[in-house]
Amino acid sequence: MNLNFASDNTGPVAGPVMDAMVAANAGGTMPYGADPWMDEVRDGLRSLFDWPEAEVLLVSTGTAANALALATLVEPWEAVFCHRLSHVEADECGAPEFYTGGAKLVLVDGEDAKMAPEALDAAVSRTGGSVHGVQRGAISLTNVTEAGTIYTLAELDVLCSYARELNLPVHLDGARFANACAALDCSAAEMVRGADIVSFGGTKNGCMGVEAIVMRDPSKGWQAALRRKRAGHLWSKHRFLSAQMAAYLRDNLWLENARAANAAGQRLAQGLRTIGAEIVHEPAANMIFARLPAEAHHRAQKEAQYYLMDDQERPLCRLVCDFTKTDKEVDRLLELFAG
Amino acid sequence: MNLNFASDNTGPVAGPVMDAMVAANAGGTMPYGADPWMDEVRDGLRSLFDWPEAEVLLVSTGTAANALALATLVEPWEAVFCHRLSHVEADECGAPEFYTGGAKLVLVDGEDAKMAPEALDAAVSRTGGSVHGVQRGAISLTNVTEAGTIYTLAELDVLCSYARELNLPVHLDGARFANACAALDCSAAEMVRGADIVSFGGTKNGCMGVEAIVMRDPSKGWQAALRRKRAGHLWSKHRFLSAQMAAYLRDNLWLENARAANAAGQRLAQGLRTIGAEIVHEPAANMIFARLPAEAHHRAQKEAQYYLMDDQERPLCRLVCDFTKTDKEVDRLLELFAG
Amino acid sequence: MNLNFASDNTGPVAGPVMDAMVAANAGGTMPYGADPWMDEVRDGLRSLFDWPEAEVLLVSTGTAANALALATLVEPWEAVFCHRLSHVEADECGAPEFYTGGAKLVLVDGEDAKMAPEALDAAVSRTGGSVHGVQRGAISLTNVTEAGTIYTLAELDVLCSYARELNLPVHLDGARFANACAALDCSAAEMVRGADIVSFGGTKNGCMGVEAIVMRDPSKGWQAALRRKRAGHLWSKHRFLSAQMAAYLRDNLWLENARAANAAGQRLAQGLRTIGAEIVHEPAANMIFARLPAEAHHRAQKEAQYYLMDDQERPLCRLVCDFTKTDKEVDRLLELFAG
Amino acid sequence: MNLNFASDNTGPVAGPVMDAMVAANAGGTMPYGADPWMDEVRDGLRSLFDWPEAEVLLVSTGTAANALALATLVEPWEAVFCHRLSHVEADECGAPEFYTGGAKLVLVDGEDAKMAPEALDAAVSRTGGSVHGVQRGAISLTNVTEAGTIYTLAELDVLCSYARELNLPVHLDGARFANACAALDCSAAEMVRGADIVSFGGTKNGCMGVEAIVMRDPSKGWQAALRRKRAGHLWSKHRFLSAQMAAYLRDNLWLENARAANAAGQRLAQGLRTIGAEIVHEPAANMIFARLPAEAHHRAQKEAQYYLMDDQERPLCRLVCDFTKTDKEVDRLLELFAG
Repeated sequence: MNLNFASDNTGPVAGPVMDAMVAANAGGTMPYGADPWMDEVRDGLRSLFDWPEAEVLLVSTGTAANALALATLVEPWEAVFCHRLSHVEADECGAPEFYTGGAKLVLVDGEDAKMAPEALDAAVSRTGGSVHGVQRGAISLTNVTEAGTIYTLAELDVLCSYARELNLPVHLDGARFANACAALDCSAAEMVRGADIVSFGGTKNGCMGVEAIVMRDPSKGWQAALRRKRAGHLWSKHRFLSAQMAAYLRDNLWLENARAANAAGQRLAQGLRTIGAEIVHEPAANMIFARLPAEAHHRAQKEAQYYLMDDQERPLCRLVCDFTKTDKEVDRLLELFAG
Repeated sequence: MNLNFASDNTGPVAGPVMDAMVAANAGGTMPYGADPWMDEVRDGLRSLFDWPEAEVLLVSTGTAANALALATLVEPWEAVFCHRLSHVEADECGAPEFYTGGAKLVLVDGEDAKMAPEALDAAVSRTGGSVHGVQRGAISLTNVTEAGTIYTLAELDVLCSYARELNLPVHLDGARFANACAALDCSAAEMVRGADIVSFGGTKNGCMGVEAIVMRDPSKGWQAALRRKRAGHLWSKHRFLSAQMAAYLRDNLWLENARAANAAGQRLAQGLRTIGAEIVHEPAANMIFARLPAEAHHRAQKEAQYYLMDDQERPLCRLVCDFTKTDKEVDRLLELFAG
Repeated sequence: MNLNFASDNTGPVAGPVMDAMVAANAGGTMPYGADPWMDEVRDGLRSLFDWPEAEVLLVSTGTAANALALATLVEPWEAVFCHRLSHVEADECGAPEFYTGGAKLVLVDGEDAKMAPEALDAAVSRTGGSVHGVQRGAISLTNVTEAGTIYTLAELDVLCSYARELNLPVHLDGARFANACAALDCSAAEMVRGADIVSFGGTKNGCMGVEAIVMRDPSKGWQAALRRKRAGHLWSKHRFLSAQMAAYLRDNLWLENARAANAAGQRLAQGLRTIGAEIVHEPAANMIFARLPAEAHHRAQKEAQYYLMDDQERPLCRLVCDFTKTDKEVDRLLELFAG
Repeated sequence: MNLNFASDNTGPVAGPVMDAMVAANAGGTMPYGADPWMDEVRDGLRSLFDWPEAEVLLVSTGTAANALALATLVEPWEAVFCHRLSHVEADECGAPEFYTGGAKLVLVDGEDAKMAPEALDAAVSRTGGSVHGVQRGAISLTNVTEAGTIYTLAELDVLCSYARELNLPVHLDGARFANACAALDCSAAEMVRGADIVSFGGTKNGCMGVEAIVMRDPSKGWQAALRRKRAGHLWSKHRFLSAQMAAYLRDNLWLENARAANAAGQRLAQGLRTIGAEIVHEPAANMIFARLPAEAHHRAQKEAQYYLMDDQERPLCRLVCDFTKTDKEVDRLLELFAG
């Protein structure tokens, strides 16, 4: 039984994705993206997002996707507005600063890792204007958030309308894009309707290592391609990136996997509530933050893996369900906690 | 029949490597390099290079490996001395400049893409000293070179001794490291005896996308790990990088594949000579540059893939054999050329 | 009558400084710092700070001094901890990010633009550790602060001791270093006793455009010199930087000017209180933030210059006294406000 | 007698320039370029260049002017084509790489430090195209060159026409712009007719430290202003930069000084020929490279300053005349050489 709840990236590659990689290994194919699967991926994402002109680039990590996306949006002397818990701020060792040539991440507060519109406005208002401060660049949102919560479509609309009014482009960090769609039961096109560039994640949801940078406006596509090459993220055997993403998009695999992961997450959250755990953020998808009695944690950690976020009397645990988690595995974890 | 001679990166993933990736997919494993295959890789490369303390980091492209390696060696105001045909200068869209924060690649001449010692000395002598010019940083060598030629161990020793005298670290771009070892019939340890940091390539020789940065002195290992993360090159599902490299090192697969590729290359070179092609550089491994009659090229290109380097009366063609090229495939290409 | 209270940089060059520049113009002198006045400056600052080994570099702006100083202290993947109102964060258009290669400024709260020790500790505690976040770099303090307030020596000691415990170097932004010394009636050596590198300002206090970067430990002096050159901040006619700073240090001019500026500032603050202005921060030196009745502001702005920080019912005005401000000028401004 | 022939930057500030700085010290003036002299400078340079829309920014060093200018023209993944002896390549410690975020300086050969058109074309032809190499950015010319030679207007036209055909912007490093105009007896407008951005030097020709970045097309003016601030090159007491440049432009001081310097240079060159020195490049302005008998050098160096470029049997000496050099001083140097 696999009781690894540490992250969705501890999970396996989905069968159809692995099969596609094996299949792509037959015969010689031209390198650097001139492979047939890339055409399928481009068409697939354009259609999914309803962005008919979109430029699509594949890279192998989410940090690369985010940093490259932001670099196409902001100048070195501009600000990226993001939540202080966002991945770009907290978990990428300064990759956005590296790729943008030193842009400044301006932190925005808000409950549950979601930017509050008034906090965003306050942050934006403090920038720009004279030559002495950094200028306004872009807004970066994350859905599902790093707290496992979710922006509703209406909430996204509010932030994206604000951005549009100020002529600020919007980046959507979609490392868990599929989980957000599944949770909101909305289409990908609805999810991206206010965005300009999306990091569309595959790695956490059944791929081996592939993320798509999807640019609504293709005019910066060549620049992005050069930035990707210059960053060492252009694969020579690119077909193994495209084959993953093609398989992920086929037959709604991306959505099915996310639904499975979310269902496991919701079962886990429900179970945790019944055993007296304190759920810290309202878990909308497959990631739960919960405070548990210390003895529950001590019991469980001998058999199960997950991250401990602090070491207080009731320690805060992060529990993530990948798309393979079975009811049995979830229930076993709950048993361990319950004692 | 696979007549793709465009590059070794058009070739497939070797069976044992693909099998290892499939095997690594079973069960959950901790992310970011905390997987058992990484231990095997680290031990394997330390032993192969006879560098018992070496730090090893895996990335998915050769450009990333080179640029990260150079960034650990030079400051932004320092020079990297390299041949003007080297991959770091000519084929990476400025990745070394990006990763180092703007170091200068100082170009060194020499026949057959190999630095001439006196040209290196002249270039080095023009740098350093006052605050007005860039300072001396590191020397970057490539073996097999981008011209398909090879530095002998004695030639490497001359350049590396010079570097040591001046206290300049040596980077070895080993995108075709295995082919060089196979061609020289030397050990990996002999190949790296004068080097400080090596980009040990897997992608061109049977892997899907993995290169090892091997640092003789581990003291900059943490810095390199941070740089890798910051560049978006730390894989969450890292086990699929380590599994590739582990399989590549097992049972001398790296060397066997290179021997096969080199043998095909030599067969092709020999055949080309017999049909009146002009071999431009002495082909030492699996890459041949040849001038062919225009009609030979026109005949062949309908069925075979390879790069055309210029469009002169006798066009210059680059022909690369990957490790799977059979005698039959080579002979068919020769037939096409011969008409 | 000069009623320009906009900034201390609207003030003139002090007589002895201008005289020294004129004097330095006689005869040819070798460029780039090989001038006799630079020796005087170096000796003077070493003695003033009681840092016998210190390396000293001159540049022409405070932003350059701060950014170069920070670049010698932190790696691109490290954090600079600073107050959110600090000049490096708010008024340099991202110069620290540019010079450091993308380091992250981590903001620390605290009243009156002074870092609260517990807020600093909280910020520091959130960084470092794993490869995913930025690492701990340096602490940057400003005295006099951007709010016109002052860290006492005891307050500096608390922050600097904390830094030393964690082995974090301390940068002191001393754009108004002299005003701080004058206000605290302490020596320069006392002011820098916990610091590692100081931006010692001249421009705001009687020089034309010169700031000294003073490095307690000279081991990074050569690196700093290369960074300065590479940034275009090494003057060929360097003697005109050194002559300014030499004159500024001679006969305690730096301190005398600051005392004069502070005295004017205190007279102004006292007067403002008597006419019902709300002093926003406790003004310790020559810069006052005050809320005034709107009509007072409207009356004064026809004749006097100063910055308006907001446009509320009682607008917030920033009033700065340079070292030349006379009692008469201060009193005239007060008259204008009083109506 | 001033026998310092080391560089034009060892010379003094011209009287009218120093007077203007002293005059600018009277009264308070708003900072950061909002001073009346800046208006005069902007108008003056627009008129001089016949660039009615030009944006003008002042900085205090030539390296800053060049690096900022290039940063507005090229992306980080682009090439700057320049002569291998150019200041941007050889004498700025990598400032262009720093400011551009890692652009590549692609070196072009040519006699007398002047790019040969065919060498430029060859260099340009090797760049651009695929994503693997750096892209074409800008061309940087220097007039007077670092060898003391001069591009004629016709030679400039050839290079600039080539640039225009390829849509590559042209930067003109005019550290000795005035000397070039004086030598060619042409107008400033003629000199810049093919250029897009000019570093118009003041420092070497009678100013203390000021260079103008003049942008024909003002559309990148705001970007350039932000870059300048971010680099720490925006002076708070900016009036002392503008006052210098205003005085330099008034009454053709810039041209008169250059004529004087060139006349001294020509007298020196003529004298050197008569005493058997080997003039290495055809000296067109105020800088002479000459091989002298070793004993001549040994005699002279006790009394006179100049740079020794090598230490061969007949050492190569660089002799530069600033605008104050008198016939007597030149003749005394010649006497010392002649023995």
